[in-house]
Amino acid sequence: MRTVRVKLAYDGSRFFGWQRQEGFHSVQEAVEDALVSLTGESVTVHGAGRTDTGVHAFGQVAHFHLASGLEDEQLLRALNAHLEPGVVALALETCREPFHAQYDARGKRYVYVVATTRFRPPSGGETFHWVHDPLDLEAMRAAAARLVGEHDFSAFSNAGSPRRSNVRTVRSVHLWARRRRLAIAVEGSGFLYNMVRTIAGTLLDAGRGKLTADDVSAVLAARDRKRAGPTAPACGLYLLSVQYATPCFRGEWGGPRPAGVFRPSE
Amino acid sequence: MRTVRVKLAYDGSRFFGWQRQEGFHSVQEAVEDALVSLTGESVTVHGAGRTDTGVHAFGQVAHFHLASGLEDEQLLRALNAHLEPGVVALALETCREPFHAQYDARGKRYVYVVATTRFRPPSGGETFHWVHDPLDLEAMRAAAARLVGEHDFSAFSNAGSPRRSNVRTVRSVHLWARRRRLAIAVEGSGFLYNMVRTIAGTLLDAGRGKLTADDVSAVLAARDRKRAGPTAPACGLYLLSVQYATPCFRGEWGGPRPAGVFRPSE
Repeated sequence: MRTVRVKLAYDGSRFFGWQRQEGFHSVQEAVEDALVSLTGESVTVHGAGRTDTGVHAFGQVAHFHLASGLEDEQLLRALNAHLEPGVVALALETCREPFHAQYDARGKRYVYVVATTRFRPPSGGETFHWVHDPLDLEAMRAAAARLVGEHDFSAFSNAGSPRRSNVRTVRSVHLWARRRRLAIAVEGSGFLYNMVRTIAGTLLDAGRGKLTADDVSAVLAARDRKRAGPTAPACGLYLLSVQYATPCFRGEWGGPRPAGVFRPSE
Repeated sequence: MRTVRVKLAYDGSRFFGWQRQEGFHSVQEAVEDALVSLTGESVTVHGAGRTDTGVHAFGQVAHFHLASGLEDEQLLRALNAHLEPGVVALALETCREPFHAQYDARGKRYVYVVATTRFRPPSGGETFHWVHDPLDLEAMRAAAARLVGEHDFSAFSNAGSPRRSNVRTVRSVHLWARRRRLAIAVEGSGFLYNMVRTIAGTLLDAGRGKLTADDVSAVLAARDRKRAGPTAPACGLYLLSVQYATPCFRGEWGGPRPAGVFRPSE
């Protein structure tokens, strides 16, 4: 048996989250079903993070054990041919060393996408969160800076599965603003249940003037979920990438491009 | 009766094109229905361009005659409250001079959006055209340059309603390439039926090495539709803006923004 890791992108609006559960169609089930129909092997696919219903991924990482001798490149193509619409395998490789997508993860990067238009955009409603209030970007950045570092993020998590510790390290929070979109990119060692969505909801409230940077520090210190901002809706959230100690997926698409030729990207 | 002009955005995948037709739901019908339910007046809404089924708009312009004394700002809000999902009024104003959205148009700008990824993106399939071939951007730009200027574009139009002349002026063709998207922006005095989609299909063929810039010049000169590239699918096409001799919609959202505050955009 070999261990295979795969990088996945999916449209969260088409699934009831990552995790397989009776009676609800999940991304995990979609990938496992594709692998069964492709190889005849009944495998369990372990994801790096259990994204909720409606949450999207550009770079979820998962692993599974496989007996099939199909080469990586052929397996990648065949997997995509068997996957249902809404989920795509972007890259795939056989691991040279033992690998666990969840336990070996050293960090994750998420982006929260906000449409900042006066009226609700006519399409794509399940791919962003629409906010029509004016937002003070500098106030949002000042509030974001208070979240960076090692903190007890109890105030930024909804009651989920109990954890030994609610201390996490947020490595960076960056905001990008364009004419019609605002993106909040958060990178950290790991995240509590609903933590990125609560960070997004809190920063949006800071942008609206409902919370100051000092309030954010006070909320963190008080560890009181009720004082943080609301949990922003799932539709705006994307799992961008997962970091590991050993670099992954450095294969064919990472090399330099021939000058002047626009190669298809992941 | 006053003349009102409105700037519209819509998701073309939800409508059978712009033009009202029995038994098929169109954008024109959606706007007219919203105006009837809002004002009680049965009005005809004239669009600048008749976009096909599946073609989107960020800045379609339309006009209509109205007796209602509702102020522009109130009318804009109320219209959006009555419009069905998939179409939005971005701006609205009462014309000070006679105005016809179609006959007074001096030019239009379209953008054709291509997703350039190896595998089909998991979402948004109705909002771009997916091409996984490597594309030679410089070859596309060289081919695009041959289209700029006043030409008989018979080779770039499918048989539509007969016209007195197939001579049109293409003012510019620009290509933008990002990691996962390629955009072809075309601006011109006016366009024949399917002309922008045929330009896109031809430039993509040039990118694939199927046509050279010299071939494009020869195709134009021969006025032979069969020698140009295929008509690229409707899903990638957006009507971006319509130009008029008198500037339109220079109202509330065009002014300078207060420093540091990110105001909602159109």
